[in-house]
Amino acid sequence: MKISIMGASGYTGGELIRLLLNHSKLEIAHLTSRQYKGEYVYRVHPNLRGLTSLQFIDHDLERVIQDSDLIFTAVPHGTAVKIIPKIVERGIRVIDFSADFRLKNSEDYRLWYNYEHPHPELLEKFVYGIPELYREEIRRAKFVSNPGCMAISSILALAPIVKENLVEDRIIVDAKIASSGSGGKPSLFTHYSERYNVVRPYKLVNHRHTAEIEQELSKLNKKKLKICMSPHAVNMVRGILVTCHSFSKENINLSRLWKAYRSFYANEPFIRLIKDKKGLYRYPDPKMIIGSNFCDLGFDYDERSKRIVSLGALDNLIKGASGNALQCMNLMLGFDEREGLNLPALHPL
Amino acid sequence: MKISIMGASGYTGGELIRLLLNHSKLEIAHLTSRQYKGEYVYRVHPNLRGLTSLQFIDHDLERVIQDSDLIFTAVPHGTAVKIIPKIVERGIRVIDFSADFRLKNSEDYRLWYNYEHPHPELLEKFVYGIPELYREEIRRAKFVSNPGCMAISSILALAPIVKENLVEDRIIVDAKIASSGSGGKPSLFTHYSERYNVVRPYKLVNHRHTAEIEQELSKLNKKKLKICMSPHAVNMVRGILVTCHSFSKENINLSRLWKAYRSFYANEPFIRLIKDKKGLYRYPDPKMIIGSNFCDLGFDYDERSKRIVSLGALDNLIKGASGNALQCMNLMLGFDEREGLNLPALHPL
Amino acid sequence: MKISIMGASGYTGGELIRLLLNHSKLEIAHLTSRQYKGEYVYRVHPNLRGLTSLQFIDHDLERVIQDSDLIFTAVPHGTAVKIIPKIVERGIRVIDFSADFRLKNSEDYRLWYNYEHPHPELLEKFVYGIPELYREEIRRAKFVSNPGCMAISSILALAPIVKENLVEDRIIVDAKIASSGSGGKPSLFTHYSERYNVVRPYKLVNHRHTAEIEQELSKLNKKKLKICMSPHAVNMVRGILVTCHSFSKENINLSRLWKAYRSFYANEPFIRLIKDKKGLYRYPDPKMIIGSNFCDLGFDYDERSKRIVSLGALDNLIKGASGNALQCMNLMLGFDEREGLNLPALHPL
Amino acid sequence: MKISIMGASGYTGGELIRLLLNHSKLEIAHLTSRQYKGEYVYRVHPNLRGLTSLQFIDHDLERVIQDSDLIFTAVPHGTAVKIIPKIVERGIRVIDFSADFRLKNSEDYRLWYNYEHPHPELLEKFVYGIPELYREEIRRAKFVSNPGCMAISSILALAPIVKENLVEDRIIVDAKIASSGSGGKPSLFTHYSERYNVVRPYKLVNHRHTAEIEQELSKLNKKKLKICMSPHAVNMVRGILVTCHSFSKENINLSRLWKAYRSFYANEPFIRLIKDKKGLYRYPDPKMIIGSNFCDLGFDYDERSKRIVSLGALDNLIKGASGNALQCMNLMLGFDEREGLNLPALHPL
Repeated sequence: MKISIMGASGYTGGELIRLLLNHSKLEIAHLTSRQYKGEYVYRVHPNLRGLTSLQFIDHDLERVIQDSDLIFTAVPHGTAVKIIPKIVERGIRVIDFSADFRLKNSEDYRLWYNYEHPHPELLEKFVYGIPELYREEIRRAKFVSNPGCMAISSILALAPIVKENLVEDRIIVDAKIASSGSGGKPSLFTHYSERYNVVRPYKLVNHRHTAEIEQELSKLNKKKLKICMSPHAVNMVRGILVTCHSFSKENINLSRLWKAYRSFYANEPFIRLIKDKKGLYRYPDPKMIIGSNFCDLGFDYDERSKRIVSLGALDNLIKGASGNALQCMNLMLGFDEREGLNLPALHPL
Repeated sequence: MKISIMGASGYTGGELIRLLLNHSKLEIAHLTSRQYKGEYVYRVHPNLRGLTSLQFIDHDLERVIQDSDLIFTAVPHGTAVKIIPKIVERGIRVIDFSADFRLKNSEDYRLWYNYEHPHPELLEKFVYGIPELYREEIRRAKFVSNPGCMAISSILALAPIVKENLVEDRIIVDAKIASSGSGGKPSLFTHYSERYNVVRPYKLVNHRHTAEIEQELSKLNKKKLKICMSPHAVNMVRGILVTCHSFSKENINLSRLWKAYRSFYANEPFIRLIKDKKGLYRYPDPKMIIGSNFCDLGFDYDERSKRIVSLGALDNLIKGASGNALQCMNLMLGFDEREGLNLPALHPL
Repeated sequence: MKISIMGASGYTGGELIRLLLNHSKLEIAHLTSRQYKGEYVYRVHPNLRGLTSLQFIDHDLERVIQDSDLIFTAVPHGTAVKIIPKIVERGIRVIDFSADFRLKNSEDYRLWYNYEHPHPELLEKFVYGIPELYREEIRRAKFVSNPGCMAISSILALAPIVKENLVEDRIIVDAKIASSGSGGKPSLFTHYSERYNVVRPYKLVNHRHTAEIEQELSKLNKKKLKICMSPHAVNMVRGILVTCHSFSKENINLSRLWKAYRSFYANEPFIRLIKDKKGLYRYPDPKMIIGSNFCDLGFDYDERSKRIVSLGALDNLIKGASGNALQCMNLMLGFDEREGLNLPALHPL
Repeated sequence: MKISIMGASGYTGGELIRLLLNHSKLEIAHLTSRQYKGEYVYRVHPNLRGLTSLQFIDHDLERVIQDSDLIFTAVPHGTAVKIIPKIVERGIRVIDFSADFRLKNSEDYRLWYNYEHPHPELLEKFVYGIPELYREEIRRAKFVSNPGCMAISSILALAPIVKENLVEDRIIVDAKIASSGSGGKPSLFTHYSERYNVVRPYKLVNHRHTAEIEQELSKLNKKKLKICMSPHAVNMVRGILVTCHSFSKENINLSRLWKAYRSFYANEPFIRLIKDKKGLYRYPDPKMIIGSNFCDLGFDYDERSKRIVSLGALDNLIKGASGNALQCMNLMLGFDEREGLNLPALHPL
């Protein structure tokens, strides 16, 4: 099987190459980068020095289509929508990292992105790529839209209690996110002297990624939920933790929550439920999953206020991006879902 | 005027000494430390080397009482309650850093601390030391209880909207806190290799400091509120950010919030309201206040869900502890409230 | 093949388990830990949760010997020397992580460790475990002593120029080292609030690990060298960079250095030579190798002063400890030297 | 007295404003910034919000000259040399932060900066602004050139042993430096995801700042020394540590070094000698001086190799830049040298 990555010079592209080099069943056909065409991959992704002698080529879509069984598109939002219709037309499998095909309702693009989607007819062709929700659909899919890192962590953290209709319809997602989610392009926002040591709230209301969380959780809940997400940039390069606060409709208890999470995630290869009563590692913490494809989930219950706290931690570049995309690819191509993803996290780190 | 600090070898003690050295109207009588009696202060607080030749003495309460006009007690919870009755009896001014005299209702100690308070009769003698709420009471007080760092930041962030009765009665406080709040005693929890890079949730429900937040905000609101606080240890040594999520009772807008915050905090010397539409510094962020006595406050409003986001950022060792105590002391002793506290934050840091 | 680890609850033990789980040819017989006997491994090494259901057993040496083809001893200096003679006697292969069998001359233990070595007769039986220097010896060895992380990085950085006798006989090694090298036991030295943000020099002269560097480099040089090593604790959990400053005997140039390094390290699987003229990644930097078994080497030459700067960067827990030990094990057991070690570093991190 | 800062929007400019706000004897006339003219100062230096309502003006040199008794020029290298001749001509006091007037010999600009200095006749008019070396000259000076942060730390660390002619003529300076030394302009080099967690060597040979260190130490030594400096970017925003390795000509001991340092720095207000035998704070560490104008110095001696290790730690924006400039200004204007600089460092931080 031959795969290609369009837009392979960014952080998610680099992480995908790293994972693919560790995958036993694949061959890399092309890695494209407008900015770095002709350059050795290891000059942009220095961790890959000595591991690959591949070079980037230009965004030559025709060549990529001809030589690939599956294409990952890791280009910016707005660029994907220009490339992908041609790939779809040719019937080549594609996994897209952008937001361009995540929402099912073109009206939502108007509302959240202030954007008239040029190909609304394609939206329904894409499966929203969370294996824990859509495993069978992904297996049969040719076109998959990879979720955003805050979206996948929030959806996975909340899915069990939303599916069982345990919670009131306004849910708060307080997200703490690492710098690599902002990509590799320098700006004042990511200037080290300004970014170090921060707990910097940004886009506290109406963050665009709310749309996909609401879409997916409302579908599970079978009625419309309101997701209230507020992200904070914190002092680390990889990882995300979402702390979700919701209120249960009735008085429940921890056993009820254990039951909901256990039944929803039984046998999931990349979900770990973490709620320990002793020791240092009682709840999910991104520190414990960096380098792995795990999403760690946990929860607690506050009887005084009927508040449920749901936690999700993952490596934003792996389960939050490239690892999840590879997991989808494994399903689409009929490989073992874990192939290339059996990477323990590094500890301590 | 002569002041002493009992328990001066901890981080809040050290910060208080640092600030006192910069105060023009005071003389330090005694600094006590059981562990470090006889040792030079600068061996424990290395930043003070070259600035003071003071030495710690043992916890000699009688000597401290005789030589001091005001005593700061920065000893652990449970120890303060043993010392302070003697100071109160002698009529010496005291500012206590522990939780032992923060709650007004001894029943709350039973509920939150699982603790039978041995001196319930003293609780009403203490003023809860937030100048922005109790300036006049503090001026007249002999006994002040200094609030916890998560409590003061949460209370200041929420006071305006609670006072004006704008919000529903369950409020979520999602706190992000630096390591120095855990003190100077090594443990696995604070072992660098385990503590670096974390976003570590802990005590997600029923955290003890909830009690004082609820006490103070309910008093402002004139009816009982439920505060739902969840703290997270993050990767920095100083600073705290609280992100408070509440729901407005009616549809409001940003102007309404501006009005509430502006009127509540008019002319406050150590409150800054931060809500910018452009630039990097749009909301409060602890990075911008480290080293100063400021508490930065901000807010935003989500019309879709009627959610109010209220933010409070401060240096947990200054406005969250020793700086606030000094501000109280200035009021109690009739000094300019800002004396010794005109320290700009360091930027970048 | 069955292997065991004695002292498996420390950071090097945990890293070794992580690597062994990724090794296709081995079975883990026993993992011992006095402190955590009976406990699940993942409670101590939280990154391994979901990947292994192994539990620690007590230090039952006899049981370990009976069930193992090779034993890793990751116990403290001074403890290894008590255990290992019994393993040697039984003829079981051992790779020791302590300093107890690194020095060949028992007199050096007196000098550097102030310690009368109880088994000087065993010292010559141990091969100093650097594959790049002693590959064939390690293949034939039953007993290998794994080098210290500052030692292996310094030796690899300097070997080419020392071997070719290019430098004067006093060499400065200025080391910058991460916290995980100090292990997992809390102390004031490793207390987060004290350890964060440091560039803390310690043991600036006469550091014990100097002894093994001097031993190995003097052997290569065929005359006695003086190594002057000064370590600095820096603000990270993993990684080490050694900056070695020496003076060339004669005027040389960069080509001469390229030749020395290239010829010494031709075809080495885990050495990368890094000296780029452009871009961000011009010299070795531990940031680029965290998570991998690479040792990155680089150099530069200052014609004004005839100074050679030699650089070595590695992950102190991998090539600086457990990865290197596994590489030695692969050689000893006849496996592909790279087995279980084909792990790219994570970038960015 | 009225002072102005040309180029006040950079990090050293911001730090200078912060310090000036704390100075009792001065008035700020103008703060210029081409990029931010018309903007409030606190929008660029967010720590100053609430402390000043000043605004930046354009680089209007004539206006600045007319309204100022002393001008700080904190503009880039190469720009200062265009502005300063006009200020000199008008006889206004100036303290320049750039390298443009640090070297006395115009030939050195050719050699180190590959630059033909347009005003070699002005070089001798400038005093190299280290009060510990040139206090009386600075008192009498109208024109002072403020040293670079790596230069001042290296010179202060080495001056005593060089002055007494104790060391051989090649000295190694291994520097570890924080990010704020690179200024506030985003680039890939300072992109957080690339800059976090680094120990990144750069410009290992022939770094330009070597020239001023060599100039000053050779002058003290009365013969030409060779300084071999290699900087490393490390994971922090403020601070610098230089570890200087030299070899003593004869066998000496620690007492000899104590004598040299004590006699050279007797009564210096901003020098602390740190060499403790116990505790955590045995040597200088930038962590202990952040926020203060101190330069902490320490040393050790290795009898085996006759190596002297000399250490210097300072806050690169204070004693390494703006604090030192203010100290010079206090001398030039006849104020108490410590005025505005009595700021203890923050600990922990």
